[in-house]
Amino acid sequence: MVSPLPLALTLGEPAGIGPDISLLAWRRREPGEGVFLVIGNRECLARRARLMGLEVPLAAIAEPGEAAAVFDEALPVLDMPLKVQPVPGSLDPAAAPGVVGAIEAAVALALEGTVAGIVTNPIHKDALYRTGFAHQGHTDFLAHLARQAGYDACPVMMLSAGSFRTVPLTVHIPLKDVAGAISEDLILRQARVVARDLSGLVGGPVRMAVAGLNPHAGENGALGTEERDIIAPAIARLKGEGLDVTGPLSADTLFHDEVRGLFDVYLCMYHDQALIPVKTIGFHEGVNTTLGLPFVRTSPDHGTALALAGSGNANPSSLLAALKLARQLAAARAER
Amino acid sequence: MVSPLPLALTLGEPAGIGPDISLLAWRRREPGEGVFLVIGNRECLARRARLMGLEVPLAAIAEPGEAAAVFDEALPVLDMPLKVQPVPGSLDPAAAPGVVGAIEAAVALALEGTVAGIVTNPIHKDALYRTGFAHQGHTDFLAHLARQAGYDACPVMMLSAGSFRTVPLTVHIPLKDVAGAISEDLILRQARVVARDLSGLVGGPVRMAVAGLNPHAGENGALGTEERDIIAPAIARLKGEGLDVTGPLSADTLFHDEVRGLFDVYLCMYHDQALIPVKTIGFHEGVNTTLGLPFVRTSPDHGTALALAGSGNANPSSLLAALKLARQLAAARAER
Repeated sequence: MVSPLPLALTLGEPAGIGPDISLLAWRRREPGEGVFLVIGNRECLARRARLMGLEVPLAAIAEPGEAAAVFDEALPVLDMPLKVQPVPGSLDPAAAPGVVGAIEAAVALALEGTVAGIVTNPIHKDALYRTGFAHQGHTDFLAHLARQAGYDACPVMMLSAGSFRTVPLTVHIPLKDVAGAISEDLILRQARVVARDLSGLVGGPVRMAVAGLNPHAGENGALGTEERDIIAPAIARLKGEGLDVTGPLSADTLFHDEVRGLFDVYLCMYHDQALIPVKTIGFHEGVNTTLGLPFVRTSPDHGTALALAGSGNANPSSLLAALKLARQLAAARAER
Repeated sequence: MVSPLPLALTLGEPAGIGPDISLLAWRRREPGEGVFLVIGNRECLARRARLMGLEVPLAAIAEPGEAAAVFDEALPVLDMPLKVQPVPGSLDPAAAPGVVGAIEAAVALALEGTVAGIVTNPIHKDALYRTGFAHQGHTDFLAHLARQAGYDACPVMMLSAGSFRTVPLTVHIPLKDVAGAISEDLILRQARVVARDLSGLVGGPVRMAVAGLNPHAGENGALGTEERDIIAPAIARLKGEGLDVTGPLSADTLFHDEVRGLFDVYLCMYHDQALIPVKTIGFHEGVNTTLGLPFVRTSPDHGTALALAGSGNANPSSLLAALKLARQLAAARAER
């Protein structure tokens, strides 16, 4: 079922490819595929369209409810002020308030229920840090905004390419710190969020595989003890709660096509263990989803690609996949 | 050019699928594809063929030079004694001397130059340890035998699926010990062996990518310092020696199909970083090669699969790929 509400797409870093792929995604719209609106600077979008030679009418709207009526003919935009118009490829700290404001506005709309979910274009963290942005990235910031509004938030990052989905238990920490950061409690919290938030999407109990940390999942303790001491007890507890969880499994033989059909999602222990298989298989279709929030949030799985901004060479495939997945997650959530 | 010398294929653990896939590989022989002989117990092979209902004539030979003349009509076997005939799927320590003896015999033939190289069927380390085998596995044992015979050996493990090749700098150690095990010296030694031993195969200077250790290759030090302090200096030194080396590169975006064509081999920092992409892409065609030995050595990239022994369900694809790669490496070495 296509949600009757539009998705909110934040513009992201305006000097990057966010404007480019937002325009391209609207041009690839298909009847009945669902409506989205952009939260960002309308003038920036108009200039980028001209630069790229793209015919994209922009419709200024005042609230999300107006998006559906115009979407076939124009890209609906909730206009956000921008102090300076960006030079494609060139970061300017003056853009930061507009970038952050678009995310805040999207969260507010999602929490009041006037958009079906949020899709975020990439931001450039360095550019935001310089202006006092205190969050590690989108995920932390979204959780912060949800908590500020009085909601529970246990953000869990999920990467996917089609129906192949992985969750990194730990994310942006040095590899030497990974073993120390893994705990039974962390596994329990994330696995419960994953099982809850994906069940609607997969249409039943979530079949979850859990990867080991060490080569050969520790080979019975010979190559590491975290499987025995931390991961296996967590899995036993999750099974006791009725979840469909298998592991710890050796990570190297876990992701080939004959195994992928057996599981809906893989809980991995660290960044590269989760991201290597997804990006190796579906580089252009990768989607980054945040589970555990009080609203749906997906994102294309790439950066701002400053060098491609305005060139016409940015690929909107990942954003299109992110919009599609957000619609599916929103429909599943609406039925819950 | 097909080497005029046969390859030596060791039987491996006789209770596993080594006999099964050896028989199947011979049945898949194609004219002009190159000759191999099995070093192992002939009676064991004969029984396994009967159990599997396979028509495979076995030709007892006394030396490798006899293999070519019989190969079209029969599988040549250099017979090795075995104290007890194995029950498929059931480990028996009495088999250990025969398993080890086959490897020793293969190395002796390779060093005297009467075989083109060695292909090893999987062994079961636990079964060998119980009888006093003191090596971590094939790779260490082969290096030990080479050194014992007076040769230099700097064994480097390479995994490949077709022309996609990865080398794990560290292998069978717990993940928590990986960061401490990486050194500039280790990178230099392994990269030099890889560049030397693959140049014949790839037909020119080896294009080598080096992966970072941390998420996003450390993100300029924010997510780890090993890239800056250890990996980048090693790469600079290798470039100074004239090698074609690129990195450190973020591992998650390194292995998708558009990048794979740019490099002949990837030097990775640890087991799963190297093995996940190869096994995800080419699970049944994976080959394990040991570079840095005074002879060619490849192996199918799977274990003894005890549960499949004798069932007729073992897949010889990986062994066939190992035989093919050994022939290519031997031909390249012969031209050196």
